[in-house]
Amino acid sequence: MDDIESIIELIEAASGTREFDLIIRNVQIVNVFTGEIKPGSLGIYKGMIVSSDVKSEAKARRIFDGNNLYALPGFIDTHVHIDSTLLTPSALAALITPCGTTSVFADPMEIANVAGMNGVKAFIQPGPDLPYHFFIEVPSRVPSAPGLETTGGELGLVEVREMLDWDSAISLGEIDPSKIIDRKREYMEKVMQAQAIGKIVNGHTAGLSREKLVAYACARIADDHECITYDEAKERLSLGMCVLVREGSTERNLEALVGGLLRENAAIDRWMLCTDDKHPDDIASEGHIDHMVRKAISIGLDPIKAIQMATINAAVHFRKEHVLGSLSPGRWADILLTRDLHDLHAEFVFFKGELVAEKGKLVAEIKAKRFPEWLQHTVIITRGRAAGDFELMATKPKVTARVIKIFPDQIVNEEEKAVLVVTDGNIQTAPERDILKLAVVERYGKNGNIGIAFVSGFGLNFGAMASSVSHDHHNIVVVGADEPSMAGCVKAIERMQGGLVVCNGDEILAELPLPIGGLLSDQNAENVIHSLKKMNEAAWSLGCSLPAPFMTLSFISLPTVPELGLTDMGLIDVKEHKIIPPFYPD
Amino acid sequence: MDDIESIIELIEAASGTREFDLIIRNVQIVNVFTGEIKPGSLGIYKGMIVSSDVKSEAKARRIFDGNNLYALPGFIDTHVHIDSTLLTPSALAALITPCGTTSVFADPMEIANVAGMNGVKAFIQPGPDLPYHFFIEVPSRVPSAPGLETTGGELGLVEVREMLDWDSAISLGEIDPSKIIDRKREYMEKVMQAQAIGKIVNGHTAGLSREKLVAYACARIADDHECITYDEAKERLSLGMCVLVREGSTERNLEALVGGLLRENAAIDRWMLCTDDKHPDDIASEGHIDHMVRKAISIGLDPIKAIQMATINAAVHFRKEHVLGSLSPGRWADILLTRDLHDLHAEFVFFKGELVAEKGKLVAEIKAKRFPEWLQHTVIITRGRAAGDFELMATKPKVTARVIKIFPDQIVNEEEKAVLVVTDGNIQTAPERDILKLAVVERYGKNGNIGIAFVSGFGLNFGAMASSVSHDHHNIVVVGADEPSMAGCVKAIERMQGGLVVCNGDEILAELPLPIGGLLSDQNAENVIHSLKKMNEAAWSLGCSLPAPFMTLSFISLPTVPELGLTDMGLIDVKEHKIIPPFYPD
Repeated sequence: MDDIESIIELIEAASGTREFDLIIRNVQIVNVFTGEIKPGSLGIYKGMIVSSDVKSEAKARRIFDGNNLYALPGFIDTHVHIDSTLLTPSALAALITPCGTTSVFADPMEIANVAGMNGVKAFIQPGPDLPYHFFIEVPSRVPSAPGLETTGGELGLVEVREMLDWDSAISLGEIDPSKIIDRKREYMEKVMQAQAIGKIVNGHTAGLSREKLVAYACARIADDHECITYDEAKERLSLGMCVLVREGSTERNLEALVGGLLRENAAIDRWMLCTDDKHPDDIASEGHIDHMVRKAISIGLDPIKAIQMATINAAVHFRKEHVLGSLSPGRWADILLTRDLHDLHAEFVFFKGELVAEKGKLVAEIKAKRFPEWLQHTVIITRGRAAGDFELMATKPKVTARVIKIFPDQIVNEEEKAVLVVTDGNIQTAPERDILKLAVVERYGKNGNIGIAFVSGFGLNFGAMASSVSHDHHNIVVVGADEPSMAGCVKAIERMQGGLVVCNGDEILAELPLPIGGLLSDQNAENVIHSLKKMNEAAWSLGCSLPAPFMTLSFISLPTVPELGLTDMGLIDVKEHKIIPPFYPD
Repeated sequence: MDDIESIIELIEAASGTREFDLIIRNVQIVNVFTGEIKPGSLGIYKGMIVSSDVKSEAKARRIFDGNNLYALPGFIDTHVHIDSTLLTPSALAALITPCGTTSVFADPMEIANVAGMNGVKAFIQPGPDLPYHFFIEVPSRVPSAPGLETTGGELGLVEVREMLDWDSAISLGEIDPSKIIDRKREYMEKVMQAQAIGKIVNGHTAGLSREKLVAYACARIADDHECITYDEAKERLSLGMCVLVREGSTERNLEALVGGLLRENAAIDRWMLCTDDKHPDDIASEGHIDHMVRKAISIGLDPIKAIQMATINAAVHFRKEHVLGSLSPGRWADILLTRDLHDLHAEFVFFKGELVAEKGKLVAEIKAKRFPEWLQHTVIITRGRAAGDFELMATKPKVTARVIKIFPDQIVNEEEKAVLVVTDGNIQTAPERDILKLAVVERYGKNGNIGIAFVSGFGLNFGAMASSVSHDHHNIVVVGADEPSMAGCVKAIERMQGGLVVCNGDEILAELPLPIGGLLSDQNAENVIHSLKKMNEAAWSLGCSLPAPFMTLSFISLPTVPELGLTDMGLIDVKEHKIIPPFYPD
């Protein structure tokens, strides 16, 4: 990132012996260290800030009139799975850059599950024209549930060690509490390796008991992004963790957490912001980190403090304050200009001293990145093309099935029992009672596994829907009222080499190809948002009543979220961490 | 520092499956993250904190009754030259450990000037029983003035690179502004190397103009410890630097800086404390970092904020918050117990879970460290044993000399002119006008250089005094009313292999051997303080009127502090950075 010649020239610019590349004149500069706002001009050279009090006679190749707007550092998203957007890093820029997000700390665990370290490598090299800093939180748990799922890639200790050394690696990504509390040596070593080279270890602690939380904290876990209440946040703070306030598409914790901060008038220097999982349509409609900043201010937080949470606090915590998070000399010239510090919308966004967005629109030209061919051909189907592959055989006329009962907008589920008829030895679905078949089809060409069980809550009257986005293993998950439709879905996904699809038999009602690793579209944000809308409409046309059918589908197969999961290996009892039969023996 | 077995066992202790080593019961625990004080018990295992809310039924090998005292993290000195104490790291413990200082971030540039990287290596391996964490700020400028002084050791880019990788290296030590502003490549590379491996770069900015300060900040300098006024501190903060408030023996900036903080009710998260140079007698009489904490509180700072400045703020800034600065799980059990949060004196001090001081006394047993023989024989004299070596020849009967005029308690000096008589070709001192000879005798056996000039302000009526502590090159500096006494001093220092001495002719009036690198005593703190008192009394008996004669003497030869310096190479015009004659040609 740093080359000595640039810094030497930067110092020459500061000393007045070298012309600036750009001066942004006439701005009200927000200093995130002192909290002061002072009129001034920002001098920029080779993409870095030189000075915030450039003299009026100073020369520059370009002058930008800041028109008395406020100037603040670009925003930092401290934890995000950008796969949730279905967009490539380049395509995502159209959504987040106009919002003033200039740094993204992403955990690319999805692509790692599909294609291992080489997949991550290909994924994070987004070309030199990406208009935001793209750092990775090195995935610490790929696969999530070893022995209970087939994945395309794995990241062992050797790979994680190598990745931690990458310049683009900013931390070890959210480490699974159970791995620490159960003292799994491989994971402990990942943690200690990160700390040994001066990088932090991100945590996640949803629902941990006090005792487990303390045990987890013993491994010097640096933060948590899953606090829901202010009391939880304060407890984690008191144990030495920073709080990453999360506001994604479904998890929305900002109001409760910032509300608590306001009640107690507490210090905010160990608080920062993240989106975790936010869908492209939500970003398009309400915003990104800027949305969180506005929301925090709207409930009463001092705008300066909200800006600090979105900028310097994150830079300090991730140990990048020497290059990110402020408009100080030597920092990247990532600058957001706004008219109003309360209703804070980015009017202009600069990234490394280049104007990249203006009045809500991306103006940077970004060449669509060409991903390697092998990363666009990751779907290798062995079984699942035939209706018969989805038969679940029983020898009795009726069976009592363990049905995964799902809830809208939640990733937890419950088991419910249902008696199902067996016809020609095959257990039948009962769409009239909303009991459908759920299958996970192994798609890495490794073993042809198909895990089959039953699910309620989708509400399909006929047909099937499927996705190759299926956390965390990203095999093909398919839910259907009938088996031919399920096979139709799998064939469509194989043809698309990943994607979302809705079928009735072999008839395709809607499809959205996700050829990059079976996870990401190669289309722009606008097209993806439009297609996603069509996909939802097609799912609803089958009778589905869920608000976000494909989101629910993508989380249902998780072998790590209670009570039940389904992987290519079968139905998972999450608490017992083992495979169980999909129906009772009797 | 970290071994995986210990952390695994720590987690077992947290989970209740392993007995604690120690429980400190019944304490009021200060949480530096939330600012709260809560009653509780601290559970400790293998020198680390496990929990601050240990259950009453928990078992431990030892129980310590905290007797309702406040428990807080041990204090951190963020920048110190421990050579200023004349004590070895082991001997220093007797002074600072009872004060509650449990971490010392030291810049060992003095020993590096004497003996290079190997000297530092020998110096910082203080034995396993040292009762404080000893981290080094890797010296960035050894020698300080290349080409203008002879030193025993040098730290080039190669050595600095190697040292930055040491576990004990916490940062790159105070980098000289002129090296950055003048864009010296070697120094720029040291800076960028530190930042590339995630370590910060300490700065020092005394008296820099705004323009130079901005140029310096462009190299992402992380902090400054030389602010005298609050406005200076705020300016540095606004440029992205943290403020290390300094309160040493002579530089006393706390009142002005904390006063400013109080006036503006400003955030303190980027503020911390250091002593820089503090003499052993001052530490013994008034305290160490605890003295600063008390002083800050006495002028009105909230005790919690004062404690944060002395603990967690430093840990965060130096990127060690995962192991230092709080009483959180996984951190070293460095704990100070006190009865009173306002008049804050350490009643008990624990280091890594061991009781090391009690009621102002060190109770840890520390084996005196054996330094290598070669580090105890660093004084190699070529010239300086004969009075004639101190003659300064002129061909005229009188000359106008450039006299270094010194001021009590200041390291800056001014040039004054004085007409001096030449007898037998040798320019004479004029003790009656307080014009004495000053010489710097090269003592590394390299070239036999002796730099000679004149000085006023010492006030000796007769005799001479000398020191092998002579910043930054640490040759022998000697000031005298006559040349035989000067030679007597040099012979004594050669015999002692370093030290302080006061002579009248060959008669030794007082001496304090400093055999370790010519810088440090091998005696304990009490003896050194006593000897230092005797040394000052001897200097005063010659007529010297300075409050700290040897301190003044040790700084006078600096070739980097205006207006004049004297090294073995001669008189230095500091601003012009060149050698000049000690008297005018006419």
